[in-house]
Amino acid sequence: MIEPTTSELAHTTHGDTSSHTDPVNIPQHGVHPVEGFDVSPWQLRWRGLDIDMIGRTETLFALSNGHIGLRGSFEEGEPVDKPGTYLSGFYELRDLPYAESGYGYPESGQTVVNVTDAKIIRLLVEDEPMDLRYGRTVEHERVLDFRTGTLRRSTLWTSPTGRTVRIRSERLVSFTKRTIAAIRYEVEPIGEDMKLVLQSDLLANEPMGGAASAKEDPRLAAALERPLVADLADCEDFSAVLVHHTARSGLAVAAGMDHELELPASADTSIRADGDLARLTVAAAVPQGTKLVLTKYMGYGWSARRSVPALRAQVDAALAMAKETGWEALKQEQSDYLDEFWLDADIELDGDPELQQAVRFSLFHVLQAGARGQSRAIPAKGLTGPGYDGHTFWDTESFVLPMLTYTVPAAAGEELRWRHATMDKARSRAAELAQHGAMFPWRSINGDECSGYWPAGTAGVHVSADIANATARYIRATGDEAFEVECGVELLVEIARFFAGFGHHDSAGKFRIDGITGPDEYTAIVNNNVFTNLAAQQALRDAVAACSRQPVVARQLGVTHDETAFWTQCADDMTVPYDDALGVHQQCESFTKLDRWDFERSKGRYPLLLNYPYFDLYRKQVVKQADLVFAMYLFGDRFTPEQKLANFDYYYPITVRDSSLSACCEAVTAAEVGYLDLAYDLMSESVFTDLHDLHNNVSSGLHIAALAGAWTDCVAGFGGMRDFDGQVTFAPRLPSKLSYMSFRMMIRESRIVVAVDSDTATYRLLSGPTVELAHHGERFVLGDDPVTLGIPRLGPRTAPEAPPGCEPYQRSAR
Amino acid sequence: MIEPTTSELAHTTHGDTSSHTDPVNIPQHGVHPVEGFDVSPWQLRWRGLDIDMIGRTETLFALSNGHIGLRGSFEEGEPVDKPGTYLSGFYELRDLPYAESGYGYPESGQTVVNVTDAKIIRLLVEDEPMDLRYGRTVEHERVLDFRTGTLRRSTLWTSPTGRTVRIRSERLVSFTKRTIAAIRYEVEPIGEDMKLVLQSDLLANEPMGGAASAKEDPRLAAALERPLVADLADCEDFSAVLVHHTARSGLAVAAGMDHELELPASADTSIRADGDLARLTVAAAVPQGTKLVLTKYMGYGWSARRSVPALRAQVDAALAMAKETGWEALKQEQSDYLDEFWLDADIELDGDPELQQAVRFSLFHVLQAGARGQSRAIPAKGLTGPGYDGHTFWDTESFVLPMLTYTVPAAAGEELRWRHATMDKARSRAAELAQHGAMFPWRSINGDECSGYWPAGTAGVHVSADIANATARYIRATGDEAFEVECGVELLVEIARFFAGFGHHDSAGKFRIDGITGPDEYTAIVNNNVFTNLAAQQALRDAVAACSRQPVVARQLGVTHDETAFWTQCADDMTVPYDDALGVHQQCESFTKLDRWDFERSKGRYPLLLNYPYFDLYRKQVVKQADLVFAMYLFGDRFTPEQKLANFDYYYPITVRDSSLSACCEAVTAAEVGYLDLAYDLMSESVFTDLHDLHNNVSSGLHIAALAGAWTDCVAGFGGMRDFDGQVTFAPRLPSKLSYMSFRMMIRESRIVVAVDSDTATYRLLSGPTVELAHHGERFVLGDDPVTLGIPRLGPRTAPEAPPGCEPYQRSAR
Repeated sequence: MIEPTTSELAHTTHGDTSSHTDPVNIPQHGVHPVEGFDVSPWQLRWRGLDIDMIGRTETLFALSNGHIGLRGSFEEGEPVDKPGTYLSGFYELRDLPYAESGYGYPESGQTVVNVTDAKIIRLLVEDEPMDLRYGRTVEHERVLDFRTGTLRRSTLWTSPTGRTVRIRSERLVSFTKRTIAAIRYEVEPIGEDMKLVLQSDLLANEPMGGAASAKEDPRLAAALERPLVADLADCEDFSAVLVHHTARSGLAVAAGMDHELELPASADTSIRADGDLARLTVAAAVPQGTKLVLTKYMGYGWSARRSVPALRAQVDAALAMAKETGWEALKQEQSDYLDEFWLDADIELDGDPELQQAVRFSLFHVLQAGARGQSRAIPAKGLTGPGYDGHTFWDTESFVLPMLTYTVPAAAGEELRWRHATMDKARSRAAELAQHGAMFPWRSINGDECSGYWPAGTAGVHVSADIANATARYIRATGDEAFEVECGVELLVEIARFFAGFGHHDSAGKFRIDGITGPDEYTAIVNNNVFTNLAAQQALRDAVAACSRQPVVARQLGVTHDETAFWTQCADDMTVPYDDALGVHQQCESFTKLDRWDFERSKGRYPLLLNYPYFDLYRKQVVKQADLVFAMYLFGDRFTPEQKLANFDYYYPITVRDSSLSACCEAVTAAEVGYLDLAYDLMSESVFTDLHDLHNNVSSGLHIAALAGAWTDCVAGFGGMRDFDGQVTFAPRLPSKLSYMSFRMMIRESRIVVAVDSDTATYRLLSGPTVELAHHGERFVLGDDPVTLGIPRLGPRTAPEAPPGCEPYQRSAR
Repeated sequence: MIEPTTSELAHTTHGDTSSHTDPVNIPQHGVHPVEGFDVSPWQLRWRGLDIDMIGRTETLFALSNGHIGLRGSFEEGEPVDKPGTYLSGFYELRDLPYAESGYGYPESGQTVVNVTDAKIIRLLVEDEPMDLRYGRTVEHERVLDFRTGTLRRSTLWTSPTGRTVRIRSERLVSFTKRTIAAIRYEVEPIGEDMKLVLQSDLLANEPMGGAASAKEDPRLAAALERPLVADLADCEDFSAVLVHHTARSGLAVAAGMDHELELPASADTSIRADGDLARLTVAAAVPQGTKLVLTKYMGYGWSARRSVPALRAQVDAALAMAKETGWEALKQEQSDYLDEFWLDADIELDGDPELQQAVRFSLFHVLQAGARGQSRAIPAKGLTGPGYDGHTFWDTESFVLPMLTYTVPAAAGEELRWRHATMDKARSRAAELAQHGAMFPWRSINGDECSGYWPAGTAGVHVSADIANATARYIRATGDEAFEVECGVELLVEIARFFAGFGHHDSAGKFRIDGITGPDEYTAIVNNNVFTNLAAQQALRDAVAACSRQPVVARQLGVTHDETAFWTQCADDMTVPYDDALGVHQQCESFTKLDRWDFERSKGRYPLLLNYPYFDLYRKQVVKQADLVFAMYLFGDRFTPEQKLANFDYYYPITVRDSSLSACCEAVTAAEVGYLDLAYDLMSESVFTDLHDLHNNVSSGLHIAALAGAWTDCVAGFGGMRDFDGQVTFAPRLPSKLSYMSFRMMIRESRIVVAVDSDTATYRLLSGPTVELAHHGERFVLGDDPVTLGIPRLGPRTAPEAPPGCEPYQRSAR
C-alpha cells in the first residue's frame, strides 16, 4: 500500500492563500478578541506589530520538542513579556506556606525555572539598539509553520534616526536531536551602508519581565528571583558555555552556543563568558545589498546527578553534532519528522478554514509538548510558559494521552514510564496518608505532591485512576507488552490496591468512595463522585485483567487470587448515585439536592473562583467543568442512551466551563446525544482557547489539554470513536458547518484514515493488518479495500441552554 | 432573707488542711501526670521547686480581671517560659500565607501581643542575681487563692555563695479597678546583714522565652518578635511610664508603675526610663531581722484612637488612684468582690476533695477570663497565654456564656455587646461571601475573620447560630430589655437572615444547610449537620420571637411579616438526618455510611490531627469532639429519651476527644441517659484538662471553655438543669463517688441554691421573687420555703466503651 504524500493529505489546502480574519466578538468570560492572525491551513501567521500582545504571541509561537521549550520572544531580547526557556523536569523548590498547617501537607513545591536564555541575539544599528518599541516598524510578520516546524520572522524596521534594516530569522527546536535548538538570523541594511553590531548571548537569571505575581492570580507561577547559581563559564572561538545549578533542588544545567557567521571581511568578532553571561560580539560595516548572517546553535544538558564537567562535555558534544549536521540538514530532519507526524495524526476539515488552522495548531503543539519528553512529565502548559508552576496534572493522562496513544504512541508510553518511575514516591505518599498501594500527586514536576490546597489536590484521587485508565488504554491500543511487563502491571496493581483499600463496603454491600473531589472543582470533598467511582471501577477491572495476562509479574508483586477477587468484588459493587425522582445521575451523592446556583447574579463574574469563595461554590449546583458529562464519554458503556441525554440536559445548563478542560468533554457528549451544532460550538471554544485567549491567561502558557481536545472532539466527538475494552468503534456524524472531516489513527500495527461527509463515512487501512471496527453499532473488518457506510439520519433536537453569561463560543450560527 | 456568708457556703471546708495528692496515673493521650499541687478547697498551692514545670505554673497561676492578664511568672524575670502580659483586645496583625490562595480567604490575622511587662522585680543578693536555677531553694511555695484573688509566694533561697534570703510576694489584678494590678514584694536577709538591690522594671519587647513556634504545633501562637514601637518614656520620683504602639494594627499601649517603699534610711534609689525599659533601682544594706518591702502599682491603658499624651495621662491617673487606695484596700476590695462571686456561683461537692478544688479553680479562672472584658471578646485561653493567637471562638458563646449567664450575667451581657459591636464586620463578611445578614468570624480578636483554613473556619457557620442562641438565652435568663433593644434583636435578626438565605428548601420541601462544618472538626464540609441545623432552627425561632417582643426595633431593622413567616417556615422544615436502619441520628447526612475508623491502628497516636491527614479523617466515622451529643444537650427537647440513649451509645465509642471541648458535653448527656459514673469520669477529664495538663499544652494558656464545663457538668450534668425556652428545669442525680452537691444560679431577679444528695434535692430561694422550676418533670414554684423532692431511682445501665486508647480520665473506679 502506497501512503499518500503530505501534499496529498492536504484535502482542503488551497495553497497558503489566507484571508484576514474578521474581528471576533466573543460574548463571555471577559474575553478580549484576538486579531491579527491570518487564516492558513498549515501556518499560524501574525502580521503587523502589536506590542500589547507579546505575552500571547510568545506563547503561541513557542517551540518545543518536549525536552527543551523556547517561548516565541524576539531575538533582540526586548520588548518581552516572559523570555521563557524551559527544560523538561528542571525545577527549583520553594516553601509552601500555610496560614494553618496540617498533617501531610506538602511543605515544599516545585516550580519550573526559566533557565539560561540562549535565544538572544541583540542588534545595534549604528548607535541604536533594535527595539520594536522605538522607531517605526514598516513590516512585521511572524509565521509558525506546522510542516517545517520552525518559527520564521521578517521585520522591516526604521530606527528613530531613520536607518532602515530588514531582519529575517528562523528558529527551530529539533525533534530529531532533542538537546539542540538553532536560529538563523539575517540583517540587511536598506538604502545605505551601515555599521551593525550583533551580540549573541547566553544569559542566566534574566529579569522575569511582565510576569504577574502568584498572589494576583493563583494560576500563575510564583516568579522565582535569580534561581541559578553560576558554576562555570567558558568560551572559545565562536562558542561558549555556562553551567549553573539551582540552590535548593540541586539540579545542574549547562547551556552552550556555537555560531556560523557570514560576514564582511572587515568584521570584528569577540567572545566572553563570565558568571551569568556569555556573549559573542560581531561588529561590521555592512554595505547595502549585503547581509550579516549568523547561525546560532544552542545546546542544553541538565541533570540531578552528573557533574559540571560531564554536563559541559555533553553540551559541547551536542553543539559539535549540530554544527556538523548544519542548519539546512537540521531543517530537513525537522520537516521529515513532521511529515511522519501528519501522516499519522492529521485531521482535515471542510467548511471552516479557521477551525482547520486551529486544529492543526492544536495537534502541532500537543506534539511539541509530548514528543521527546522521555520518561519526563508532560506539563499542563507543555514547555510554553510558567503557568501552573510547570506542573503536570490529570490533564495529561485524561486529555493528552488519548490523542498521543493513537497518533504518537511512543510518546504516550514514555509519559507512562515517567509515572512508573515515580512509583516509590507514590507509594510513600500513600503510606504518609495512611493508605495502601500508590497515590499519585495531584500536581508535580518530579513526582512529589505539590498541591497546597488539599480539597482540590490530594482529595482528587481520581488522578491515580486516570493514570491506571491511561495505562490500560495504552496497552490495549498498542499491545506494548514490554511496557506492560516493566511498568503497566505494577501501575495497575498499586493503583487497584489503593482504591480497594480506600473505599469500603457499606452495610448494604455497596462499595463507596467517600471524602474525595472529582473533576468538578466547584464541588469538593464529596462522597461517591460518579466519575471517580467509574474510573476506579475501570482501574480495578483492568488490574485484574493485567494480572491475568501477566501472572509472573503479578506474582512478583505479591498479588494473590483473593486480592484480585476482592478487586472484582469492589468493582462490581461500586456505588453510582442516581436520583430516581429527577431521572438523572447525581454527580456525587446528594448533588441534586443542593441549592441551585444563582447564575443571573454571577453574570459577568467569571471565572467564579476569582469572585466567589469555595465556601459558597461547593454547596451549590454549579459545575466548573465537565465531570459526570466527562464520565459519560470515558465510561460511556455504563450509561444508557436515555441516561446520557437526560444527564447532559441536566448538567450542561449548570456547567460554567471555568476550566479549559470542560468544553472539549462536553462537545463529545453533545455530539453523541445529537446536539451536533452545540458540539461544534463547544469544540470551537476548546480549540480557540489559546488562539483567542478565552481564559485571558495564554501569556502564561498554552492549555495543552484543551488543545488535545481538538483531536478528541474530531475523533471521539464527530467521529464517535470509542475504545471500550480495546474495541475501537465509530459513530461519525458531522455538524451542519462541516461538510467533510477526515482523521487518522494508529490501532496496534494498523494505520487507518476515516473520511466523513454528511451522508457517509469511508474507512481506509493505510498500513498494517486488518482491523475489526464498528460503525454506528455495525461491526466490520477493515482490510485493503476501503469501506463506505451510510450515516443514520438524526431527527432535530433542541439543545439545552448554557448558564446565562456562559454561552459557548458561537461559530455554528455564523 | 439573710444570705449565707462565705464561710457558711463552705459546706465541705475543713479549713485549709491539705493532703498531698497521690501521683496521678493518666492512661491516655500522651499525658504526663502533674504532681505537686496540694488539695485544698479554696486554693491552688504548689510546694517545692519544679523548673521544668514553669510553663504550666505560669498559666495555672495567671491572674486576670478580663481586662489585664498577667501570667504567673516569677517577679525576678527568670527562669521563665512565657512572661506574658496581655491586654484584652490588644493585638498585632500578621500576614496569613497560603500555598494556594482563594477568594475570600483572610489575608491578615490578629495575634495577641505580650505587652510591656510591669511585673518584673529583679533582686540582687550581694553580687548574685536571685535566680531559682542557681543556688539552693530551701523552701518554695506558691498559692493562688480563690477567695482573696491573689497569688502569694514564699521562697527561702540560698545563693551559690551561701547567702540566704526569704522572699514573699503577693500580687493581684484588680477586679474592682480594671486598669490596675499590684505586687507587694518583701525580701528578708536570713542570718546576716546583706546588701540587696531591687530593680523594678517596665520592660517592652521581652524575649519570648521557651515559646514553641507555630510551625511545630499549629495550636501555638505565632511568636511575634519585637511587636512594640516606642513612643514615650518618662519617669519621676518612684514612678515611670512607657508608651508604645504596634506597627501594623496601630494600637497604642501605655504601661505605668509607681511604688511605695519600706527601706532602711541608708538606701539609695534611682529611676530611669528610656525606649523599652523603665527601672526603679533600690540599693540598700539590709540588717538581718529587717525587710526590704516594695509595693508596686501597675497601670495599663490602651487604645486604637487615643493619643500618646491621653494614654499616658490615663495611666498616671490610674496609678494615682491605686496609690491613694493603697495595697490593703485593694486587697480588701478584691476579696469582697470574690465573696460576692462565690455567693452567686459556688459549687460544693462532697466525696472528692480534689474535684472540689478543681471545680473552684475552674470557676475562678472563668471569672478571671470574663469578669471585666467590657465589650471585648473572651478569648479561648482568657488572658493566660498566647495559645490560639489569643482568639475567641464559638467556645465563648457555647461553653463560657451558659455559666456566666447564670452566675455573672453582666459579664455575659458585655461579651454579647462586643459581638454586637462587630456587627458591621459580620455584615461585610457575609457580603464578601455572597451571603445575607451577618456572618461572625470563626476566630478573631477584633471581629475580623482570622481563620486561615476555611473548611474548619468559615465553614463552621454554627458560630453565628451559637451567638444567636447565647443572645436569646441571656435575654430569657436575665430579662435585660435594654440589651435586647440595643443589641439582642439586631443580633438575632441578622443571624436569622443569614441562615434563611444560606439554607434552601429542596424539592421535597425540606430546609437544608449544606456544605458546612459542625463542631466535629474531623468531619468537614458536610450537609445537614444536626448540631448546626438545630442551632439554626433555634436561632430562626428566637429571631421571630424577639421581633414579636420588640416590634419597633424589628421595624427599624426592616423586618417584615413575610420575613418572619419565612424564618418560621425554614425552622419548621429543618432537615434532621436520621438513619432508620441503625435507629440513630446521623451527625450529618450520610455520616453513618462512612467507613469506620480503625481505632486499633491509631492507638497512641493522639491527637489524630497531628498524625493523620484531614483527608483521611474527614471520610471516616471518627469524631473529634461531641457534636451530635452536644446537640442532644443544647437542643434536648428535639430528641426522645430513647434517641438520646441510642445516639449516645453510637457516638461515644467513636469520639476520641481530641478537643478539650468534648468531655464536658459528653458528660452532660452521659448523666442524662443514666451513665452517671461515666459522666463523672468525663467531667473529671474536663475539669482536670489544665490542672493535669491532659492536652500537653497548658503552658500556652488555659482552656477556658473546658473550665466552664466544670460548671456545666455539675449544673446541667448532675443537676440536670435545662433552660429550653427559658423554662429552667432540673433533674438532679449524683454519681456514686459524690455524696453531695450544691450549686447556685441567678434566674432573672432570683438567686437560688440547689442542694443534692443521693436521695433528694433541696431547692432554696436566696433572694428575689418566686420562681417556677421543675424537678424530674414535676413543676413547682419556689418561694421562701425550701422545697425538698425525691430523686427517682435509676436501674443500672452499662455504659458503652470509649475508643480503644481513648478511655476517659478515670476517677470513678478509684
